[in-house]
Amino acid sequence: EQTIPHCLTVEAIESDPVFSQENQYFQSQNERYEAAVRRAVYLQKKIREMGWSETGPEFQYIYRCLSGDVALLLHRVFIRSISVLGSDEQIAKWIPLATDYRIIGSYAQTELGHGTYLQGLETTAVFDTATQEFILNTPKISAMKWWPGDMGRSATHSLVFAQLYVHGKCYGVHPFILQIRSLQDHSPCPGVTVGDIGPKMNFQHTDNGFLRLQNVRVPRENMLSKFCEVQPDGTYVRWGSQKINYFTMTSVRIAILPGEVILPLMKACTIAIRYSAVRRQSKLKPGEQEAKILDYQTQQQKLLPQLATAYAFHFINTYLHELFNRGYQDIQGKNFDSLPELHAFSSGFKAMVSQHCTSGVEICLRACGGHGYSLLSGLPSLYTRIIASCIYEGENTVLFLQTARFLIKCFMAASAGQPIPPSVTYLSSVKPGKCPAKDKSDFLSPETYLKAYEQMAIRLISSSAAKLQHLIQSGVTKYEAWNQCTVQLERAAKAHCHYITVKNFVETVEKLDNKAGIQKIMKHLCDLFALHGIFTNMGDFLYDGYLTAAHMDLVTASYLDLLAVIRKDAVPLVDAFDFTDKNLNSALGSYDGQVYQRLYEGARRSPTNQQGNPAYGKYLKPLLQNTLSKL
Amino acid sequence: EQTIPHCLTVEAIESDPVFSQENQYFQSQNERYEAAVRRAVYLQKKIREMGWSETGPEFQYIYRCLSGDVALLLHRVFIRSISVLGSDEQIAKWIPLATDYRIIGSYAQTELGHGTYLQGLETTAVFDTATQEFILNTPKISAMKWWPGDMGRSATHSLVFAQLYVHGKCYGVHPFILQIRSLQDHSPCPGVTVGDIGPKMNFQHTDNGFLRLQNVRVPRENMLSKFCEVQPDGTYVRWGSQKINYFTMTSVRIAILPGEVILPLMKACTIAIRYSAVRRQSKLKPGEQEAKILDYQTQQQKLLPQLATAYAFHFINTYLHELFNRGYQDIQGKNFDSLPELHAFSSGFKAMVSQHCTSGVEICLRACGGHGYSLLSGLPSLYTRIIASCIYEGENTVLFLQTARFLIKCFMAASAGQPIPPSVTYLSSVKPGKCPAKDKSDFLSPETYLKAYEQMAIRLISSSAAKLQHLIQSGVTKYEAWNQCTVQLERAAKAHCHYITVKNFVETVEKLDNKAGIQKIMKHLCDLFALHGIFTNMGDFLYDGYLTAAHMDLVTASYLDLLAVIRKDAVPLVDAFDFTDKNLNSALGSYDGQVYQRLYEGARRSPTNQQGNPAYGKYLKPLLQNTLSKL
Repeated sequence: EQTIPHCLTVEAIESDPVFSQENQYFQSQNERYEAAVRRAVYLQKKIREMGWSETGPEFQYIYRCLSGDVALLLHRVFIRSISVLGSDEQIAKWIPLATDYRIIGSYAQTELGHGTYLQGLETTAVFDTATQEFILNTPKISAMKWWPGDMGRSATHSLVFAQLYVHGKCYGVHPFILQIRSLQDHSPCPGVTVGDIGPKMNFQHTDNGFLRLQNVRVPRENMLSKFCEVQPDGTYVRWGSQKINYFTMTSVRIAILPGEVILPLMKACTIAIRYSAVRRQSKLKPGEQEAKILDYQTQQQKLLPQLATAYAFHFINTYLHELFNRGYQDIQGKNFDSLPELHAFSSGFKAMVSQHCTSGVEICLRACGGHGYSLLSGLPSLYTRIIASCIYEGENTVLFLQTARFLIKCFMAASAGQPIPPSVTYLSSVKPGKCPAKDKSDFLSPETYLKAYEQMAIRLISSSAAKLQHLIQSGVTKYEAWNQCTVQLERAAKAHCHYITVKNFVETVEKLDNKAGIQKIMKHLCDLFALHGIFTNMGDFLYDGYLTAAHMDLVTASYLDLLAVIRKDAVPLVDAFDFTDKNLNSALGSYDGQVYQRLYEGARRSPTNQQGNPAYGKYLKPLLQNTLSKL
Repeated sequence: EQTIPHCLTVEAIESDPVFSQENQYFQSQNERYEAAVRRAVYLQKKIREMGWSETGPEFQYIYRCLSGDVALLLHRVFIRSISVLGSDEQIAKWIPLATDYRIIGSYAQTELGHGTYLQGLETTAVFDTATQEFILNTPKISAMKWWPGDMGRSATHSLVFAQLYVHGKCYGVHPFILQIRSLQDHSPCPGVTVGDIGPKMNFQHTDNGFLRLQNVRVPRENMLSKFCEVQPDGTYVRWGSQKINYFTMTSVRIAILPGEVILPLMKACTIAIRYSAVRRQSKLKPGEQEAKILDYQTQQQKLLPQLATAYAFHFINTYLHELFNRGYQDIQGKNFDSLPELHAFSSGFKAMVSQHCTSGVEICLRACGGHGYSLLSGLPSLYTRIIASCIYEGENTVLFLQTARFLIKCFMAASAGQPIPPSVTYLSSVKPGKCPAKDKSDFLSPETYLKAYEQMAIRLISSSAAKLQHLIQSGVTKYEAWNQCTVQLERAAKAHCHYITVKNFVETVEKLDNKAGIQKIMKHLCDLFALHGIFTNMGDFLYDGYLTAAHMDLVTASYLDLLAVIRKDAVPLVDAFDFTDKNLNSALGSYDGQVYQRLYEGARRSPTNQQGNPAYGKYLKPLLQNTLSKL
C-alpha cells in the first residue's frame, strides 16, 4: 500500500528544479550548503502543501530522492530529543516553535576531545541558586562542541550536553536548551563563539559546527526534565528509568542503516554492474570483439559478492527492525529485559553493515577503472560519504567490542546452564565434529554452510572467553585482560554477526516458496553470499578442522560456478533496486548505458570549461609569447 | 652525500610563499589548478637560478616538498618520450623548445573507451602521400583522448597515440607530435576540440583533458621515428627493437612507487600514530586518566602493521630499483633476457604496493575517528589521491595477472627441469612437509616464517597451474581456461609478491649487523610484517597443512606480543620518516601534538567562517523573523 505515495512523491520531488542534483559535482562547500538550506526550507513548505507526513514513509521517500542532500536534519533530532526527554511544559513551549521553523535547533553532544566516551564530556553547567540559572562554560579547548550538524551556520538554538554541577557536586551529563544566535540578526549570543568546522571529505551541504561557551546563562527550566530535575533550592531529583536513553541510541543505529548505509551500496552496485555490462576491454578470444568486462571472472568476483551483500543487508535490516519493534513493545509494557540484546545487536550490525558496505562501495569504485574516479561517475561521492558511517553513531571497533561483551556474557551463562536470549541459543550447542560434505553441490545446501558458520562463530567466541579467563586466573587485572583479548574479541563479534546474516538470508529465501522464480535467484545470491564469506575468511573456517582443505576446494569450485550463474541476472538484479537516473546521478550508471556520451556532456558542463583559464594570462602567456618570436 | 642539497632544497622551497600549501584544503578546482601552474612556472625559474638539476635528486626533494602538487608534470613525460622515441632531427627540433617551456607538451594515450588495452585504441592517423601528411581523426566518441594530464587547459602540443594507416593497411599504434592550441592566443587549433574532463576525486591541480580530432594534419616528420618510419612513398620501415617501449612502461611503474605510493602511507602513519599518542578516550582502568588510544590493542593492531608495511615497502623499493638498474645495464649491452622478469616484477609489485598502501592509508584515516574525516587532518586528501594509484599505469588486477602468467611459465619450466630466473628459483623447491615450530618464540625466527610463506606461494602457483592444465586437457579453450582460473591466479601472484617482500625485509635486516640498535627494532618490524601477513591470510597458510591450527595459536600470540613491543618505539619510528609540519599539512600530525588548537585555527581560517552566510538572508531570515513578532 506504500506504492502510491512513493510514486507521487518521487515524481513531485524529481521534477522540481529546487531539488535538482544535476550540478552537485561542480559545487563548492558554500554552494552545497546554500542549496541544502534552500531545499530544507522549500521542502517544509511543500510537505505542508501536499499533506505529506513529516515522520511517515513520505519523508523516507523524499530523503531517498534527495540522497540525503538537505539541511536542517539535526533540527529534527533536536525536536525528537525534546519530545523524548522534555517535561510536558518544555514540550508545550518548544515543540511548536521548532515545528514551525520559528527557531532552528541542533544537537550538541560531541566535543573536540570527546566522542564515543560520553562520560568524559567536559562542558560544565553550574547551578546558581541565587538567579535560578545554569551557567554554561567551555573550560578548555578540548571541551568545545565540535561536529554538530546545522550548528555551524544555521541554528538559533542547540541542545547542549554538559556535566551538571550543583553546590559543587557533579551529577553527570544532562541536556540543556541554549539559544546560540540572535533571532533578530543571527549574530552569536553574548558569551557564545560559534562557527563552521571547515571542509570535510563529504557532507559539504552540512554546516558541522563548533561552539565555545563563556558564562552563558540559561533559566532553570531549560534543563530537559522528564526524568530528572534540579529544584529551586538545588536539590537534584531523578525519577523514571535512565535506560530509555540507551534505547534511543539503539534505535538511531538501526534507523540509519537502510538510507545511509545499504542504499549507497545498492547505488554503487547499480553503477558498477551496468557500466561493466557496457564497457569492453581486451579480448577473451582472439579475433572476436573486445569482451564486456563483466564477463571476466575477476570482475565478477569483485562485483557480484557486493550485489549479494546488498540483498543480504536489505534482509537483515528487516530482521533488525522486527527485533527492535518487539523490544519497543516490551519496553512500553515496562519490560526492559531485551535491552542488552538490542544494544548488542544494534552495535554489532551497525558496525558490520557499515564496514561491509563501505568496502563494497570502494570495490565498485575501483572496479570502474579511471572513469570511476571522475566525480561524474557518482562513485567518489558515495564512497566519501559512506565511509563516515564507520565512525559516526559509535566507532565500529568500539561497537564490535560492545557486542563481544554481550556474547561473552551469554556464552558464560550458557556454559553455566543459565537461560540466554533466543537469538544466541546457538552458543549452547557446541558439538565438535566434521563437515559431512563430499561434493561441491553439497555446499549449495544451506544446512551445510550454516553449520560451518555456526561452528566458526562458536569457536571464536569460546576461545576468546577461554583466553580471557586464563589471563584473569593467571593474575592479570580484568581490564588489562580484556584489552589483551580485544583483537580476538572483535573477530568473534564479526563472526557472530556474519553468521546471523547468513542465517537470516536462508530463512528469508525459505519464506519465498510461493514465488518460485524469485526464490531461485535469491537462493543463488544467498549461496554466493555464504560461500564468498567462507572463501574470503578461509582461515577462520579451516582453523578448528570442521572444514578441511578438501572442503575448501569444493567451496571454491561452487563459489566460482555461482559467479557465472549470477552474472546472467546481474543487470536485472540491480534494476530491481529501482533507482531513477536522476537519483543515481551517474554518467556510468544510467539505464540507457550511454556512458561515454554522458561523461562528455558532464565535462562540457564543468566550470573548468565554462570559465576562462585562470592561469593562462598570468603564467603561460608570458612563456609562450617568447616562442612566437622565435618559431 | 645527498644530505646537503636535500636540506638546502627543502628550506628554499618551504620558505617560499609561492610553494605554500597552507590554504590547499580550502581551494576550488580552479584555484588549485592556477596555483599549480604558478608553481610549475616559478619552479622552472628557481631551478635555473639555484643551479639545481631537473633530473637529479633535487627534483625528487622538490617533488616531495610540494607533495606533487605542481602542474606540467606531463610536460616532462612529453620531453622524455621524444628523447627516447624520437630521431636525432626530432630531438634537435623539439627538445630545446620544450625544455625552455616555449611549447608545453602533454601525453595523449588513453581514450574514453580504452585504457589498459592499448591495441584497442581507435584514434587514426592516415598517411596522405600527396601532401606528405598524416591526417588524424577521432572516428567516434569512445576514441576521444580522455584523462591526459596538462592537456585540458595548459598544453600547446601533445604526443598523440594513433593507429597508423598507410595505403589502407594498419600498422598499429604510433606516437605523433600534434599542436593543439595556438601559440598566439591559446585557442584550439582548427579541427581540435579540447577541454578539461571536470571534477575528480583528487588531482584538482591537474587539468586532465579530452581531445577530439577532425581531419587534423601533421607533417610526415611529426611521427616519432627512432625505431620506425613512413617513407615519402608510403613504405613502412621498422628497425631496432620494439621491446624498448616495454621497458619504458616497466620503468614508470617502478618510478612512481616511492613518491606517489609509499610516501603517502608514511605520511598517513605519521599522522595517525602521532595523533593516537595524544588523543585520549575511555579508561583502561577505573579511577585513572583516560587512556591514550595508542595503548588499546585494537588501535595498535590497526596502525602498527601499517608502519611495518611502510618500512617493508621502503626496502622492497630499493630491491626493485637495483633489479631495474641491473636490467638496464643488460639492455644497454643489447641483452634483453631480463625483460620478462622485470615486466612481471614491476607489474606485480606496482599492484601489491599500491593496494596495500591504499588500504593502509584508509585504515589510518578511519583510526583517527571523526577528526580524520576533516580535510584539515590531511588524511582525506592522502586517501583520495593514493587510491588512483590502483588504477593508473595499469589496473591492478590486470597487472597481477601479468605476473601470474610469468609465474606459471616459470613453474612449468622448473617442472620440466629448465632454467628459470634467480628471483623465482624457489619455485623448483617443492617439498611438502610440516612446520617444526613448537613455541611462540619460534615464529620470531625468520627461517620459520619465510619457509611458511614460500610453501604457501608455491602451493598457490602450482595449484593454479594444475587447474589450468586440467581444464585445457578436458577440452576448454586456452583463453576460457585462463579466465576460469583468474581469481586463483591473482591470489597466487599476490602470494609471490608478499613472499618476496618478506624475504627482502629479512635480508635487509641481516645486512644491518653493524648497527645493532637499528637492527633490533627493524627485526621487530620485520617480524610484525611477516606475522601480520600470516594472521590476516590464515586460510592460505592453513590450507596445505604446513602450518596447523596449533601453529596459528603461536603465530597469534607472537603477533599480539609484538604489537605491545613496537608500540614503545612507534612515535620515533614515524619521526624517522622526517616530514616537516608544513609538508604533512595536518592538524592531527604535527610534531608538537597541539591537535585541538590546530583544528580550531584551521576552522577559523575556513572560507565558511570568513565569508557571510549565503543562506541566511534568502532562506532563514524570512522564517525567523516570524518568531520575533510572536516570542
